[in-house]
Amino acid sequence: MPEKIKIIKLGGEIIEDKNKLTIFLKQFHRLGGLKILVHGGGKIASSFAERLGVKVEMIDGRRLTSEPMREIVQCVYGGLVNKNIVAQLQRLGCDAIGLTGADMGILKAHKREPLNGIDYGFVGEVDEVDSGKLARLLRLGVTPVLAPLTWDCESLLLNTNADTIAREVAVSLARDKSFETEVYFGLGLDGVLKDIKDPGSIISNLGHQEYLSEKANGKITDGMIAKLDNAFHCLIGGVSAVTVGSWENINFPEKGTRLFNDGASHERV
Amino acid sequence: MPEKIKIIKLGGEIIEDKNKLTIFLKQFHRLGGLKILVHGGGKIASSFAERLGVKVEMIDGRRLTSEPMREIVQCVYGGLVNKNIVAQLQRLGCDAIGLTGADMGILKAHKREPLNGIDYGFVGEVDEVDSGKLARLLRLGVTPVLAPLTWDCESLLLNTNADTIAREVAVSLARDKSFETEVYFGLGLDGVLKDIKDPGSIISNLGHQEYLSEKANGKITDGMIAKLDNAFHCLIGGVSAVTVGSWENINFPEKGTRLFNDGASHERV
Repeated sequence: MPEKIKIIKLGGEIIEDKNKLTIFLKQFHRLGGLKILVHGGGKIASSFAERLGVKVEMIDGRRLTSEPMREIVQCVYGGLVNKNIVAQLQRLGCDAIGLTGADMGILKAHKREPLNGIDYGFVGEVDEVDSGKLARLLRLGVTPVLAPLTWDCESLLLNTNADTIAREVAVSLARDKSFETEVYFGLGLDGVLKDIKDPGSIISNLGHQEYLSEKANGKITDGMIAKLDNAFHCLIGGVSAVTVGSWENINFPEKGTRLFNDGASHERV
Repeated sequence: MPEKIKIIKLGGEIIEDKNKLTIFLKQFHRLGGLKILVHGGGKIASSFAERLGVKVEMIDGRRLTSEPMREIVQCVYGGLVNKNIVAQLQRLGCDAIGLTGADMGILKAHKREPLNGIDYGFVGEVDEVDSGKLARLLRLGVTPVLAPLTWDCESLLLNTNADTIAREVAVSLARDKSFETEVYFGLGLDGVLKDIKDPGSIISNLGHQEYLSEKANGKITDGMIAKLDNAFHCLIGGVSAVTVGSWENINFPEKGTRLFNDGASHERV
């Protein structure tokens, strides 16, 4: 029987808040079975950059990663944030190991080509996840904690969207028939809202077809679109269960929005 | 028969020089068998600190690690330097993994007590190396690359001398009878010099007794004393071979200074 594995994505906005991060990590430690944590970066890199006199540039919420910014992101995501999480998990008794895409070559990527005339700089597009190596670590009883940094197969780490990393890791593990893969995207909201002005209007179950109509009708906000596109991509790629919900409810996925395939798409990735 | 394992310590001054680091990593990749790289930090952390407006304080070549400096050191050693080395080794085909003391809890330490009235701040004294976990990684075919950061068993990474980490890792692995442990301390000189003014006056073999006399006679310089004390400590702790030599000669230990036990001390650590 395939073994269950849970992939939890934690957004940067939670990481910036020490109290929230501590509460989250206790919840993460409580999760049973095999698990992987994928964390975002948050604004700590921007505050470092400002103090270092490095220009912070964002377009539509996406960071432009110049070479000095790439170095800062490598320092902050790979050294500061990742190792703080690992140390806290170890203290709780969770045998965590912090990894970037270069470690064991687990996340191979290439530098993103300029898009609509915008060069995002040293941003990674994931090409390959070495799920075999992740599996070997998991079978040692170790819990991987992945920083949002991929490896360009040369000597650089690339700044990479953590939702995308969570998706690619999940889809790659789902291909390995010895795992039954579940993904939880943890965010500041309790789930996908029917009415953006009513935080209680959680959609319990959201089908792909319904999502595509809502998206077409402009009922889903910009930030949520990228997240839900990633999340449905997981389902299409063979992940068994995908939930979008509060960072506080990772042990209660039924409280969030459970996504399902309703025949809108039979494409496989 | 015990399996050979080589522990190579690389000083921070080599890491600061990109060309030298690249040459070194090619040599390291060429080393056969099981191996571990322990790297120092170098002055990159100081230059970051200066740019961030954080005071850099050194006493006798030792860094005073305030809380803001501890964060910088975690960023630079754990994120920048360590992952740069890992990415370069991966490119060469060496399946490296970058680790701090918190990862898998491999290097447990405590914060150093003030010494002679000087509080060095967040500096780690190593208490325990989990050689079993290092061995499990090595047996996966992975090469650990250790940053000079240990874990305080709570939620902090501590700035720690890389020579000390190399020594403690080596002694811990030497206790595991399935390994035959060798250590190479790579530095800017070709070995221990008979005459400090003559770079060609390498001492090929240096016994512990001879070292202690030379030290008593004031013939060994300050920086070398700390290194050689660490190096002899490895031998006393059961390490099979200890060499102090040029960072360029890790594949030719016979060119450096080989240390040996000549009965000066029968103490075991």
